[in-house]
Amino acid sequence: MPPEWSSSPPELLLAVDRTSGRPLREQLEHAVRDAIRTSRLRTGERLPSTRELARALGLSRGLVQECYAQLLAEGYLVTRPGSATRVAAGAAAPPAALRPPAATTRLVADFRWGVPDLAAFPVDDWLWATREGVRAMPTAQFDYGDPRGSAALREVLAGYLRRVRAAAADPEHIVVCNGYAQGLGLALRVLAHGGVRTVAFEDPGTPDTVSASAAAAGLRAIPVPVDEHGLDVRALAATDARAVVVTPAHQWPTGVVLAPERRLALIAWARERDAYVVEDDYDAEFRYDREPVGALQGLAPDRVVSLGTVSKSLVPALRIGWMLCPPELSGPVGTEKNRSDRGTPTLDQFALARLIESGRFDRHLRRMRTTYAARRTALLGALAEHAPELPVTGLAAGFHAVAHLPDGADEQHVIDAARARAVGLYGMSPCLAAHTHTPTPARLVLGFGNVGERAISSGIAAVADLLTGSRTGRR
Amino acid sequence: MPPEWSSSPPELLLAVDRTSGRPLREQLEHAVRDAIRTSRLRTGERLPSTRELARALGLSRGLVQECYAQLLAEGYLVTRPGSATRVAAGAAAPPAALRPPAATTRLVADFRWGVPDLAAFPVDDWLWATREGVRAMPTAQFDYGDPRGSAALREVLAGYLRRVRAAAADPEHIVVCNGYAQGLGLALRVLAHGGVRTVAFEDPGTPDTVSASAAAAGLRAIPVPVDEHGLDVRALAATDARAVVVTPAHQWPTGVVLAPERRLALIAWARERDAYVVEDDYDAEFRYDREPVGALQGLAPDRVVSLGTVSKSLVPALRIGWMLCPPELSGPVGTEKNRSDRGTPTLDQFALARLIESGRFDRHLRRMRTTYAARRTALLGALAEHAPELPVTGLAAGFHAVAHLPDGADEQHVIDAARARAVGLYGMSPCLAAHTHTPTPARLVLGFGNVGERAISSGIAAVADLLTGSRTGRR
Repeated sequence: MPPEWSSSPPELLLAVDRTSGRPLREQLEHAVRDAIRTSRLRTGERLPSTRELARALGLSRGLVQECYAQLLAEGYLVTRPGSATRVAAGAAAPPAALRPPAATTRLVADFRWGVPDLAAFPVDDWLWATREGVRAMPTAQFDYGDPRGSAALREVLAGYLRRVRAAAADPEHIVVCNGYAQGLGLALRVLAHGGVRTVAFEDPGTPDTVSASAAAAGLRAIPVPVDEHGLDVRALAATDARAVVVTPAHQWPTGVVLAPERRLALIAWARERDAYVVEDDYDAEFRYDREPVGALQGLAPDRVVSLGTVSKSLVPALRIGWMLCPPELSGPVGTEKNRSDRGTPTLDQFALARLIESGRFDRHLRRMRTTYAARRTALLGALAEHAPELPVTGLAAGFHAVAHLPDGADEQHVIDAARARAVGLYGMSPCLAAHTHTPTPARLVLGFGNVGERAISSGIAAVADLLTGSRTGRR
Repeated sequence: MPPEWSSSPPELLLAVDRTSGRPLREQLEHAVRDAIRTSRLRTGERLPSTRELARALGLSRGLVQECYAQLLAEGYLVTRPGSATRVAAGAAAPPAALRPPAATTRLVADFRWGVPDLAAFPVDDWLWATREGVRAMPTAQFDYGDPRGSAALREVLAGYLRRVRAAAADPEHIVVCNGYAQGLGLALRVLAHGGVRTVAFEDPGTPDTVSASAAAAGLRAIPVPVDEHGLDVRALAATDARAVVVTPAHQWPTGVVLAPERRLALIAWARERDAYVVEDDYDAEFRYDREPVGALQGLAPDRVVSLGTVSKSLVPALRIGWMLCPPELSGPVGTEKNRSDRGTPTLDQFALARLIESGRFDRHLRRMRTTYAARRTALLGALAEHAPELPVTGLAAGFHAVAHLPDGADEQHVIDAARARAVGLYGMSPCLAAHTHTPTPARLVLGFGNVGERAISSGIAAVADLLTGSRTGRR
C-alpha cells in the first residue's frame, strides 16, 4: 500500500505513514533526507518553518524541531540566526548536467540580422508602462480575456497603425498575438480552413518559417521569385496558390520595395483569385529616405492580413505582435488564437498600450532611427573605405543590407574565414528555397541593428579582403 | 501614378506629391484633414510637432506652422499652451462601432468556476518581481531566446515542482508555455507526430478543449468515464487510445482523486501500450486536508507529460504555464513551441522566476489557501443551513464543488431561475461528452475562487429552494 502522503503545501510535499508503526520523527527525518538525496530539495532551498511543517503534518512542533536539529547535526541542513533553514551545500545530489553554454567566441563584430539594438531597450519606460498599465487594469481583466486581445491595446494599435502605416485599422478586426511567427501560423490555419491549399512565399525570403507553418496548417508552400521590383506577381499568378506571404515595404532579405504597379497587381490577383495576401510589415518603422511606404493593407483591407510586431521596434523578448484581419477572417482568427493559447498575456498588452499612448514608444522609435541611421552610415563608410567595389543594396529601411560578393566567391567560405577572424557574417543561402536557384550568386545579409559603429568599422576592416575576393573569398 | 509618400515616421504618414504642381501647404492641409476625416487620426491623438513634421517632410517649419494654424482655425485641431497639438473632438469620424459590452447584470454572487480570486493578485509583488527580473536580465536575453523557456525559470520551476509536487523535474525537460491550453496543443501535436492517432479524455472533463486541440493535431478524441475513484482505466484500456488527458490530483470537475491503484494501473497501461499520459495538474496547490497528492509525473517521468499553470495560483491574465516532458519528447515539444510562437515572453519568465525564488510566490499561496479555505467553509456552512440535504462533493482541493441536484431537477432550469435572482450558477452538462451520458443527473459546478464569503452566503440563501427542488428546481 502506498504511504499516506502528508505535507505542508505549498512548501514541501513529504510522506509519513501513520499506519506503518515506525516512529513519526524517524519517518520525517528519513523523508527530508530522501528529498535532499534525490535532489527534490537542492542546495540553498528553503525549508518550511518548524511551525508551518508541524501544523501541516499534524505533528507536534517539538517533534519537527528535533528532526531539523538532527539533520542540522548531520550536515543536511544549515541555518543562520534570523534566517530560514536551508539545504546545506554539498548535501544534495549534483544538479542534472546542464548543456554547456554554446562556445561563443567573443566577436569583434557580429552582423547577425534580424536583431535590433538590444541594449537600447527602454527598460525604465517599459517598467513604467507596466506599472501604469497594471494599476489601470480593472480587476476583471486579470481573468481570461478576449482572445483577440484587450480592447485597450487594440484601440491604441488601431490609432497607431492608421497614423504610422496608413493602415485601414479597425480595433474590431485586430487580433493581438505573440509575434510574427504565431500570427503567420494563425493566418495560415484560418486560410486552410477556408479552403486554401497552397501558399506562396517570396524567394529569397523565409522558406523555413513559411514551410513549417504551412505544413502545420496542412498547406503546400511554394516559392515565387523576387526581382528588383519585389515579388514577381506574374509568376505568382501562374501557380495555383490562393495565398501569399510578402514583405512589401522592405522585402526580406533583399531590401527592395514592392513597386507601385506590383502592389496594384498583387491586389488585383487577390481579388480575381479569391486569394489573400499575408503582409509581413516587420521593420517599416525605420526608413532613412523620405519615401516611406504605407502598409499594403491600407489599399485592400478585405484581402490583406497584415502582421506587425515589436520584435524590431522594441525587442524580440517581449513576444507581442498584431494582425489586421479582413473582417470576415477576424472571427476565425480569434477562435484559432483562443484554441492556441487563450490570448496574449494581458499585463504585457496593457503595458504596450500605455507605452504607445504616452508617446514614449514614438520617442523610442525616433531615438532608434537616429541610432540605426548612424550605424547604416558607419557601414556604408566602412565598405566605401575597405571594399569600394562591393555592391550593397537593400538599405532604404530597417537594419540590414545585402552585399553582393564577386563572381566566383564562395559564400560559406567567406563566412568561415570571417569567423576565424572573430567577425560574424551570414549568407543569403538560408533565405533561398533551395531548388529554385542554381547556381546562386554569393551574397551576405549584413545586419547592423545590434552592432555599434566602432564595431562595424573594425569588423568590416577585418574582413575587407574576404568581401572583395582579393584573398581567400575567391576559389 | 500614385502620389509620392512623404512622412514623419513614426509619428504620421502623410502624402505630398512634389510633381503635381499643387502648392505644398495646400497639399499638407488636405492630407491632414483627410487623415482626420477618414479616422486615420482620431479625437485626442497627438500630431507631430511642427519642427518634426517639417524636418521629416523636407518642408519649411513656417509652412507646417501655417498649415496647423489653418486647421486649428477650422476646428480640426486643438492645442493648449505647453501641450501637443491634437485632433479636436468631433472632427474625426465616429469610431467604428464597438460591440456593446455584454449585458452583465450585477450578480449577488457568481459561482463561475475556474477563476481564482482576481482581486488578490499580488500586483505589488509582481511589479517588484518584474523590475528585479528585468534588471537582472543580461542584454542578450532581450533577443529571441531558447524556445523551451529561459534557463533561469526552468531551473526555479524544477526546484519548485520537486518540492511541492514531488515531481521528477529536470530543467532540461521543462518547456515553458503560455498556459495549459497551449501546453495541451503542443503535447498533442508532438504525440500525433509520434504516431498516436487517438487521445482519450475524462468524462466528465473538458470535452471541448481536448476535442479542439486534438482536431488541430489531427487526432481523434474519445471520452472515457470517470467514477468515484477517478478515470476508469479498464475502460481506457478497452479503447485504441495511445494517449490520455487526465486530472489525477483533483479530477476536473468531479473533484475526486485518482485512487492509488488506479494511478499504478494508468502507468502500467501507458507502459504496456507504449502510450503517454497528459497530466493536467491545474489546482493542486490548494488542498484542505492533510493528504495532498503528488504529481503523477513523479511516478513515471518517462510516460507522463505534466502540465502546470499559474492561472489558478496567480491569475489567468499572466498566461504562463509549463510542461514537464519525458526526455525523448522535450526536444520535439521545444521545436513545436518554436514554430508556434518562438517562446513565451522572456520578461514575464524572469518575473515569475524571481517571484518564486524570493519566497513571495509561496507566501501568496499560503495566503490564498487561507482565503479559499474560508470561502469553502462559508459555502459548506451556507449549504448546511439552507440546503442541508444537498449532496456536495469534490471539495478536497481547489476552489470548486459539485452539488448534486435532486432526482428530476432540470439543470438548465435551475441555472436560469438563479440568474433571474442575480445568482450565477453553472451546470455540469458542458463538461460531459454528450453522447455517453443519457440521461445525465443534474449537477452544478460551484466555483468559489472569486466570490467573497458574504456573497457566498447570500447567494446560496437566495437560491436554496432551487437547489433543494422545493420550488422551481423540480419539474
